[in-house]
Amino acid sequence: MEIERKYLIPHLPDHLEQYPCRIIEQGYLNVSPVIRIRRDNDHYELTYKSGGLMAREEYNLPLTGQAYEHLLSKIDGRLIRKKRYMIPLAGGLTAELDLFEGDLAPLALAEVEFSSEEEALSFIPPSWFGEDVTFSGAYHNSYLSQIK
Amino acid sequence: MEIERKYLIPHLPDHLEQYPCRIIEQGYLNVSPVIRIRRDNDHYELTYKSGGLMAREEYNLPLTGQAYEHLLSKIDGRLIRKKRYMIPLAGGLTAELDLFEGDLAPLALAEVEFSSEEEALSFIPPSWFGEDVTFSGAYHNSYLSQIK
Repeated sequence: MEIERKYLIPHLPDHLEQYPCRIIEQGYLNVSPVIRIRRDNDHYELTYKSGGLMAREEYNLPLTGQAYEHLLSKIDGRLIRKKRYMIPLAGGLTAELDLFEGDLAPLALAEVEFSSEEEALSFIPPSWFGEDVTFSGAYHNSYLSQIK
Repeated sequence: MEIERKYLIPHLPDHLEQYPCRIIEQGYLNVSPVIRIRRDNDHYELTYKSGGLMAREEYNLPLTGQAYEHLLSKIDGRLIRKKRYMIPLAGGLTAELDLFEGDLAPLALAEVEFSSEEEALSFIPPSWFGEDVTFSGAYHNSYLSQIK
């Protein structure tokens, strides 16, 4: 079970280059349930997510690079490309800050993962976070992959 | 972990109609690892199987009928269609007897699932079972879906 909240980021934090950064590509074979392929630097995986907004069941299953390339030909809509920065927050939490590339730029979203729904609901975001879009389907990557 | 043995069935047992039977369709999005969609009567699922012949890690994840239809357009090779009969064997075991339809007919295969590798290796097949093809990749459904 993954429990997370998601925010729009109107202004990027300073000195992003000090944080660990990964290159992520992802595409969707289906959106409900989510069946997604993802490249994360040089790791490849297939992800299945059941329905729901804040809490969803998720399975991450390994792919070879060859399987990823094969499945890439089957995705619907666009391949999402983004840089992901891991930014430490108070309370031992981490913001995953995604800077989208290509025609989704300059969209920036941050996700924070929690160990319980109570912790998620009591979270006070740092000042650089913008609108809470946790409950908006419009900022699901699956939706972003399909918009024209 | 799934542990099973597989046999060719040269002559069908008598009175098949006395056993429970299901209609199965399955197609492959990828063969290594196996990423498969399956319809089993009116249930639909996505299956992921890691490599290996007798023992493989397997995840079965639910699909809606709509998701199944969507993914059907993405399969490689043919959609396999078969009737599956569940036939009780000695020792509380069950043979899953698959009668293939369409251009794979009249192929018939039986699989038996075991709770341990020891049980699998000590299995004595009933007299109506033919050649043991457990260790032959040629009778994997994923391979059957791709042959011309």
